[in-house]
Amino acid sequence: MSAPRRYAIIGTGAIGGYYGARLQQSGCEVHYLLRSDYDPVRQQGLRVDSTAGDFMLPRVNAYSNPADIPPVDVVIIALKTTQNDRLTELLPPLQPETIVLTLQNGLGIESDIARQLPGRTILGGLCFICSNKIGPGHIRHLDYGQVLLGAYDASGQPVGITEIMSAIAQDFSQAQIPIDLTADLFMARWRKLVWNVPYNGLSVVLDATTDELMADSGTRALVETLMAEVVAAANAWGEQRSPGQNRTLPPSLIAEMLTTTDQMQPYRTSMKLDYDEGRPLEVEVILGNPVSAALQMGVAVPQMQMLYQQVRFLDSLTHGRGSIAP
Amino acid sequence: MSAPRRYAIIGTGAIGGYYGARLQQSGCEVHYLLRSDYDPVRQQGLRVDSTAGDFMLPRVNAYSNPADIPPVDVVIIALKTTQNDRLTELLPPLQPETIVLTLQNGLGIESDIARQLPGRTILGGLCFICSNKIGPGHIRHLDYGQVLLGAYDASGQPVGITEIMSAIAQDFSQAQIPIDLTADLFMARWRKLVWNVPYNGLSVVLDATTDELMADSGTRALVETLMAEVVAAANAWGEQRSPGQNRTLPPSLIAEMLTTTDQMQPYRTSMKLDYDEGRPLEVEVILGNPVSAALQMGVAVPQMQMLYQQVRFLDSLTHGRGSIAP
Repeated sequence: MSAPRRYAIIGTGAIGGYYGARLQQSGCEVHYLLRSDYDPVRQQGLRVDSTAGDFMLPRVNAYSNPADIPPVDVVIIALKTTQNDRLTELLPPLQPETIVLTLQNGLGIESDIARQLPGRTILGGLCFICSNKIGPGHIRHLDYGQVLLGAYDASGQPVGITEIMSAIAQDFSQAQIPIDLTADLFMARWRKLVWNVPYNGLSVVLDATTDELMADSGTRALVETLMAEVVAAANAWGEQRSPGQNRTLPPSLIAEMLTTTDQMQPYRTSMKLDYDEGRPLEVEVILGNPVSAALQMGVAVPQMQMLYQQVRFLDSLTHGRGSIAP
Repeated sequence: MSAPRRYAIIGTGAIGGYYGARLQQSGCEVHYLLRSDYDPVRQQGLRVDSTAGDFMLPRVNAYSNPADIPPVDVVIIALKTTQNDRLTELLPPLQPETIVLTLQNGLGIESDIARQLPGRTILGGLCFICSNKIGPGHIRHLDYGQVLLGAYDASGQPVGITEIMSAIAQDFSQAQIPIDLTADLFMARWRKLVWNVPYNGLSVVLDATTDELMADSGTRALVETLMAEVVAAANAWGEQRSPGQNRTLPPSLIAEMLTTTDQMQPYRTSMKLDYDEGRPLEVEVILGNPVSAALQMGVAVPQMQMLYQQVRFLDSLTHGRGSIAP
């Protein structure tokens, strides 16, 4: 892999479209799998309105059939996790050395992919970005953009910083994508859940933005106790996989996240955006899998459990309502 | 009180209007306090459409000012509890022997009234009724109608069956209102909360009817764990007030309530009706006071607590939204 790395983007939406376009703009060879946007993107390319600089890519390698995608070094999965059960149908032909990098949110993503692609090197990237797809092939990047990259290990151990992680980081850096590497992808995922569980969940259930949840002392306290449940589950998870290694989240994390959220602009979470648009919610990876992990370890997470059931109920009702009389 | 008892109805809505009209129909002297419906009711009386028989009362004793109400034996409070902080302004002049009977829902109702009316005999009636006010002075009684009557004691002890309870029960029975007497009003209130906490709370938060909550295995399990929290709080409450007396709710209660609810018609709870109509919710007496009681006793009720914060948030947002830009 000394030549410029070749990338396939599976799911050319707000995340995949943005990062793919940045990589292509910086000189990487990028191939995009599209569904409904295939025709317009093939004809007109991609357009990115970004706080880091607008740009257009009038010609892109667009595909509607994954089998047509030529060999690549890295397959980036940027689908909603609700499509992961049909992942193998959506992947291009993989070379022995092809890396799979998932930019998806939540817990249990990599292990789910690993089950479908045994023996494959899998990386996970956590994206801290506000971006939307506002039209076919048209991405609006509103804020942030960092990726935190780590490697998956089937036994749940920290992998450290690998060569391929460093190589991908170089591509991302050249493409103006701020990137950090983590030796411990699992704890990084748990850490992100400390934010995602309360804010994603409560924003859907209570029809609220982050600032509304923070302005009310009752829901603010609820956010905090939910965070404490996630931290307890995360620390139990780290202790179970690596006994005596102090593989824990920092004690100051909750206070820091509350302060950061106080300072953020009023924010509709990604799950709330999905809910408002009538799209399926990533309820299992954000809420269901962390709850299952906690319960398997005997960690009591009653409020996470309740939030999971509430969001799952709302999600199923939304997608079942078509057949119910009003 | 050997002459026919005289009643004042404070709050002539779905509950007060129905029971008041039944008492008057059977020959009791009844005086009604009204607010927005004062003029039409003074002119046209009350109309009841009831599964137990329709009837009209063309002439009723209507008042817009409580001070104008003549002396009565029993003052029935049928206001929403959200008005209880201004209760003393709404009461008629009380004789030394006047009984106060509250037909309100929730926990801590009688003690709140007792604080405002020290030394007064206070009874509580739990109403199991489906009724609506569908127009000025026009009540629609849809189903049920039982009252469970008990007496308040400041120290939280069971009072037994008192003479005045029996006398009122006779009036109610004659008025075709099915009535039962309970020796232990407090545990009866806790028992009713075992149903009200999960169904009222979740129906608002999840925009759901009882059958929808029961049809989904996840929310059904959530109903059950919420019920178990209420039962734990109730039993701790009984044990604290009456140590060693086995003052507990029956172990079969939760299973019975689930079965009963399965057999009910699809039902929008009273709190959901209030929420849909934009009225203030009885969030403190149904959820807040039971949570406070549990926490004071050191009983963990994490899901009740979460439900309380969620409903309180939705209630405050509804009633604050007028001043927030959309």
